[in-house]
Amino acid sequence: MLYGALDAGGTKFICAVGNENGQVLDQVVIPTSTPDETMPKVIEYFKAKIDPSLPDDEKIQALGISCFGPVDVREGSKTYGNILNTPKIAWRDFPMLKTLKEALGDIPMGFDLNVNCALLGEATWGSAKGLLDAVYLKIGMGVGMGAISGGKPVHGMLHPEAGHLIMSRVPGDDYKGHCPSHGACFEGMAGGLAIEERWGKPAKELGDRPEVWELEAKYIAQAITDILLTLSPQKIILGGGIMNQSQLLPLVRKYVLECVNDYIDTKELRNINSFIAPAALNGNQGVMGAIQLASIAAAE
Amino acid sequence: MLYGALDAGGTKFICAVGNENGQVLDQVVIPTSTPDETMPKVIEYFKAKIDPSLPDDEKIQALGISCFGPVDVREGSKTYGNILNTPKIAWRDFPMLKTLKEALGDIPMGFDLNVNCALLGEATWGSAKGLLDAVYLKIGMGVGMGAISGGKPVHGMLHPEAGHLIMSRVPGDDYKGHCPSHGACFEGMAGGLAIEERWGKPAKELGDRPEVWELEAKYIAQAITDILLTLSPQKIILGGGIMNQSQLLPLVRKYVLECVNDYIDTKELRNINSFIAPAALNGNQGVMGAIQLASIAAAE
Repeated sequence: MLYGALDAGGTKFICAVGNENGQVLDQVVIPTSTPDETMPKVIEYFKAKIDPSLPDDEKIQALGISCFGPVDVREGSKTYGNILNTPKIAWRDFPMLKTLKEALGDIPMGFDLNVNCALLGEATWGSAKGLLDAVYLKIGMGVGMGAISGGKPVHGMLHPEAGHLIMSRVPGDDYKGHCPSHGACFEGMAGGLAIEERWGKPAKELGDRPEVWELEAKYIAQAITDILLTLSPQKIILGGGIMNQSQLLPLVRKYVLECVNDYIDTKELRNINSFIAPAALNGNQGVMGAIQLASIAAAE
Repeated sequence: MLYGALDAGGTKFICAVGNENGQVLDQVVIPTSTPDETMPKVIEYFKAKIDPSLPDDEKIQALGISCFGPVDVREGSKTYGNILNTPKIAWRDFPMLKTLKEALGDIPMGFDLNVNCALLGEATWGSAKGLLDAVYLKIGMGVGMGAISGGKPVHGMLHPEAGHLIMSRVPGDDYKGHCPSHGACFEGMAGGLAIEERWGKPAKELGDRPEVWELEAKYIAQAITDILLTLSPQKIILGGGIMNQSQLLPLVRKYVLECVNDYIDTKELRNINSFIAPAALNGNQGVMGAIQLASIAAAE
């Protein structure tokens, strides 16, 4: 069975075809410019995959759309499938799902926030395989979080926005923070842009400065603690470019245990190396999650 | 249809019989002492409600158990239905569900954390009626949180423990905090015991001190902000004795909007008075939630 997968990100759109095992069989990358420039190429790609002249087993049976946020994921809402108040002005209020439905017709479509989709990929084939309650925290230039609870992506009034969790300032740290809305929130203290502003260099050039990663780990650990106190996940998957610093993950685990301070006694926290773990799908979790979203839409 | 409901709290156990409309038809209150003293009375009450000599329509068809935490809510776990590492030593590791199953035999039983049950009551008949994603925050001497996501109670590795969210200290506040595990966490700064230690009087005697409630509201607002950034609820219900201070709720709403600072734009936040709302079931949400838990167990 073939599925279409669109991973619509802030810098690039990945259009792909995959199968029920999450294997990506074909993909193209389109730069994210404006809807007028980007969307016709996306539509052209998927139109060719539903062309009536194709044999049935070479056609995609459904499309999964993983989209940068904020997005309206509330089925039944008038703006379901729209991008909302993004700082990317050209995409603000863009009806992503509606545009694709109008162009591609009747094939089943699934739609979710990119980090929720990435987690869906990890929960189907990766680091959280088989778990019903898990979190994917992506720490790159910005910070995003996807979550599943009881096996379903967390939606509600919007979707998680844990990049903006309130931080307790680490004693001695007087950096003002990088978030235009909140200053010293999680992303404002620990996102890649914050690291670069705070230390005067991009994160990838700071690998030999232990003090950078000590401080970074303390803020990530605070966020993870707040996340486990609210969502109670069975696993927290860490991804994004900042996590490429291999000294960071052990420090994060250490400071999470310090923050929890034995208050919660679970087998997950006793096995912290498995509880807080790297992503397993090598950067393909977004596309693979979109494949799984398509597979769910096809089954409904 | 009649259901049994047990609301097992830290100071009292309420045993009740209710119907499918959430009406409580009979109830007794038993003080919480030790399992050896308390449980025989609980069992005696419910045994009489399944007595074979009763006509079928006077028997309870299922039992819902709402229990103080921490509890093991993971169905399939070896210790499912047990109380875990509570500070109430006599109840530590007590197999609540197993004890009732052995005493009462085969009637269907549901089991959950007390604050999850209270929310289930509010989501069935109260302030969150019909919502799939909601939170109940109980601010009393301690602080507890129940949550539903996609209509189901949030479980995972344990259950929410949002009373221990990390706080950012309000400038000028040098109170050390009351939590034995975390000092200045949410409960440590804003629970009833913290209020009493900080100001030298119980909360109910501080109604004429506006500075108490300004500070209290700022910490509650921080916690609510972290909760809405992770769980994305459609409604946050506030209960517990501290919320009886009627000046508190408007301040909490004001400071939540300050914390979010327009970063999230949803109809819920635009209608803050409905988004952050008091509990509606007059202290009966625990028993009513247990009735609903029984009704779900009967239907399974």
